[in-house]
Amino acid sequence: MKLYDYKQAPNPRRVRIFMAEKGIEIETVQINLMKLEQHSDAYRKINPLGEVPALVLDDGSCISQTNAICRYLEDIFPQTPLYGRTPLERAEVESQNHLIQMNGIIAGGEAFRNSSPNFKNRAISGPHAYPQIPELAERGLKRIDNLFADLDKHFADQQFLVGDYFSVADITAFCTMGFIRWVKKTIPSECGHLQRWFDQVASRPSSKA
Amino acid sequence: MKLYDYKQAPNPRRVRIFMAEKGIEIETVQINLMKLEQHSDAYRKINPLGEVPALVLDDGSCISQTNAICRYLEDIFPQTPLYGRTPLERAEVESQNHLIQMNGIIAGGEAFRNSSPNFKNRAISGPHAYPQIPELAERGLKRIDNLFADLDKHFADQQFLVGDYFSVADITAFCTMGFIRWVKKTIPSECGHLQRWFDQVASRPSSKA
Repeated sequence: MKLYDYKQAPNPRRVRIFMAEKGIEIETVQINLMKLEQHSDAYRKINPLGEVPALVLDDGSCISQTNAICRYLEDIFPQTPLYGRTPLERAEVESQNHLIQMNGIIAGGEAFRNSSPNFKNRAISGPHAYPQIPELAERGLKRIDNLFADLDKHFADQQFLVGDYFSVADITAFCTMGFIRWVKKTIPSECGHLQRWFDQVASRPSSKA
Repeated sequence: MKLYDYKQAPNPRRVRIFMAEKGIEIETVQINLMKLEQHSDAYRKINPLGEVPALVLDDGSCISQTNAICRYLEDIFPQTPLYGRTPLERAEVESQNHLIQMNGIIAGGEAFRNSSPNFKNRAISGPHAYPQIPELAERGLKRIDNLFADLDKHFADQQFLVGDYFSVADITAFCTMGFIRWVKKTIPSECGHLQRWFDQVASRPSSKA
């Protein structure tokens, strides 16, 4: 297996932290997104979607999309489960992970890709060109403010996103907090519960992956 | 268990078709989204997110979000698996389902919620108020056109979204095709492969659920 990675981007980081939590090591290949290497003919032959991360299996099958990769790894390396341990817990992880992806990763992407001069006509990742919408960048920033408040409330009486169980949803949220610094958003000083959770996740060895 | 449902909306329909494919029957309760019943105090006590669908278990636990509900049902009723049968197939289903959700359900929602007079200040589902962005409604329509072309190309040599295996991703795509009629989008006449797939899914008894 080979993981196509880019050290600086939030989604590949989600996969790397996931692997570190499970104690998995996989050969990685860097694809420089700033140089648009993901759209090169060579990379499109590997992953026709032109997205990173991608996991390529020994038979050449390519798995694209962060959760698809992580779920595959969970399936074949079931130790230290990160998608839940019981049916209800798995549902709660899926729900929280989806919410954080939409209100964190996607919202941050709206703020960043609709304002950065480097993303003109690339406001959505993937093969299609979409022009930037400045109002959407602004809305992304508002969504992040709402996310801070929602998470702070959540962590007031829960250790992690799903009770006292560290899951893939915490990894998604942790990488969101790193990503949104690209649009100059950091945890507000009044969000003490969120900051406590963040510091706890940051202290895990996996956070350096 | 009780499923909180709204017959006219796309996401509850995804759950109903999923249940029909698996042969599951669950008591349903209608929450009228047009009358904003999802934001009533009574419903917020059941599902604090104020979203439909929601699955409430006998112990009162509430599972929110379409995929969280469907994955829970897959877990406890494993017959007729719809999220894949092998690790690679499960990864492919997750990937396709995510793509269709983003480029179909979310794109359609952008087009609809940013243009319908009924959704002023409710451009994103959930508890927060976001004003409509007319440019985002336009972009949603463009994304749907791109989805038609992408799916038509995909179905040129594949029966379903993941080879010859009918999965939850097909349900998501089928409900997308119904949903986008709300913004007057129907499968273009030149997309014969997509139409063939649609007719095949529409002919399954579950499509009436």
